[in-house]
Amino acid sequence: MEFTAEKVIEGVSQREFTISVKDESVPCVIWTPVVADGPRPLVAMGHGGSQHKKTPGIRRRAIDYATRHGWATLAIDAPGHGDRISREEAARLSREVRDRVNGRSGSTPFSKDRLQMMARRSVQALPEWQAALDAAQALDFIGDSEPVGYWGVSMGTAIGVPLVAIEPRFCCAVFGLAGLRDGADDFRAAASNIRIPVQFVFQWDDAVAPRKTGLALFDAFGSSEKTMHINPGAHVAIPAFESRAWDDFYQRHFEKAARAQDT
Amino acid sequence: MEFTAEKVIEGVSQREFTISVKDESVPCVIWTPVVADGPRPLVAMGHGGSQHKKTPGIRRRAIDYATRHGWATLAIDAPGHGDRISREEAARLSREVRDRVNGRSGSTPFSKDRLQMMARRSVQALPEWQAALDAAQALDFIGDSEPVGYWGVSMGTAIGVPLVAIEPRFCCAVFGLAGLRDGADDFRAAASNIRIPVQFVFQWDDAVAPRKTGLALFDAFGSSEKTMHINPGAHVAIPAFESRAWDDFYQRHFEKAARAQDT
Repeated sequence: MEFTAEKVIEGVSQREFTISVKDESVPCVIWTPVVADGPRPLVAMGHGGSQHKKTPGIRRRAIDYATRHGWATLAIDAPGHGDRISREEAARLSREVRDRVNGRSGSTPFSKDRLQMMARRSVQALPEWQAALDAAQALDFIGDSEPVGYWGVSMGTAIGVPLVAIEPRFCCAVFGLAGLRDGADDFRAAASNIRIPVQFVFQWDDAVAPRKTGLALFDAFGSSEKTMHINPGAHVAIPAFESRAWDDFYQRHFEKAARAQDT
Repeated sequence: MEFTAEKVIEGVSQREFTISVKDESVPCVIWTPVVADGPRPLVAMGHGGSQHKKTPGIRRRAIDYATRHGWATLAIDAPGHGDRISREEAARLSREVRDRVNGRSGSTPFSKDRLQMMARRSVQALPEWQAALDAAQALDFIGDSEPVGYWGVSMGTAIGVPLVAIEPRFCCAVFGLAGLRDGADDFRAAASNIRIPVQFVFQWDDAVAPRKTGLALFDAFGSSEKTMHINPGAHVAIPAFESRAWDDFYQRHFEKAARAQDT
């Protein structure tokens, strides 16, 4: 693997690379401490609709994780997002998602067409994520001996749930800002196949994911350890203190995984 | 005030005292670091039904709070609980509550009689809590210049919601394991009068508090910052990691209150 760009931000190394999956180039980015020898826990972060792999929320936490804990963070551009589309397409997508999030969409937020498009995107994203994990774990400063967590809300949950359902490398996952609709049978089946600990963050006044769909998704997760955090407010208004809860969640499960390995 | 008993547990001072409120003696206990000079944040902890002021869950966290943060913890026996009843009455109460929690109660868990009894108990408990707070804050190693938080689940919420609604000393509150039933209009009004940050922990398979009553209570809180943590399992099975979330919650709001005072 060759890095296509490297820079240091707030003392954290940000390296970009591209992998090729089924004739598609998938742009990836990885953050680690600048001085990083040997294996370390990895958080895979799936961005939301219209966002991209280096979206500020992901980069901010990647830098914090590297600084506070020495963890690595991996993010990739989802199909039809980030560097995989033109600036003009990205701007249009951003407007569309903003309208949907603000409840201003002309169509219902999740029409049958949209559900099918989302399902196709998830199907495409799965082998891309798996190839990106392979590439990241092949790096000597990440390796494959340390625990791996998943984080992704909104579209990051739409893609993340089927991914986590089939990918045994993840030991815990944060999902959120998404629900389970009637008829989304594949998504329901994927959620029920998940057995690892899940933290599920949900906004109580979300124009995209109505309350009962959020509760239905929480119910569908097959995990015996699962927690739903409900806060008032709209789709994009997750309170800042939830990121502290994610940090604690990963710390707890990474330590547990490390202890399990030692015995 | 005279202390009726004093001992040191795991390096933390446990002092008992009694206050007199409306011809009733109310047994109280306070935990602080052994070396405690000057004012410090205070957590008031309301125990659950059939429990008492030194119930293991409360004492455990009181010791942790004193050790980790230097905070004081205050607990009192609720009306008809702890040292306010005989051992035989306490044993009978314990069996009754156990049956209710396990869904084995002969009567519906919250009959009209029971709701009225609970309302009377809360009315009685309010001035007792306020007098206990007065007594605690009169101690030079607690004082009245530092933030005060409330913690109480189950009966600790039944009493705590009306208490926090009228008592301006609290800057934040943890509630849980309780719901809002149809007809509990006073309880609803109290919840909606609460404006301070609330963390509300709820068990998704609770025989005492059905899901929709829990969601209704969360909705009723008047606070702009409120978070509901839902976990699978029965009434008494709150996962251990939630106590870490409470710790973070108090830390965050005590620091915020201290900063607000400084400016």
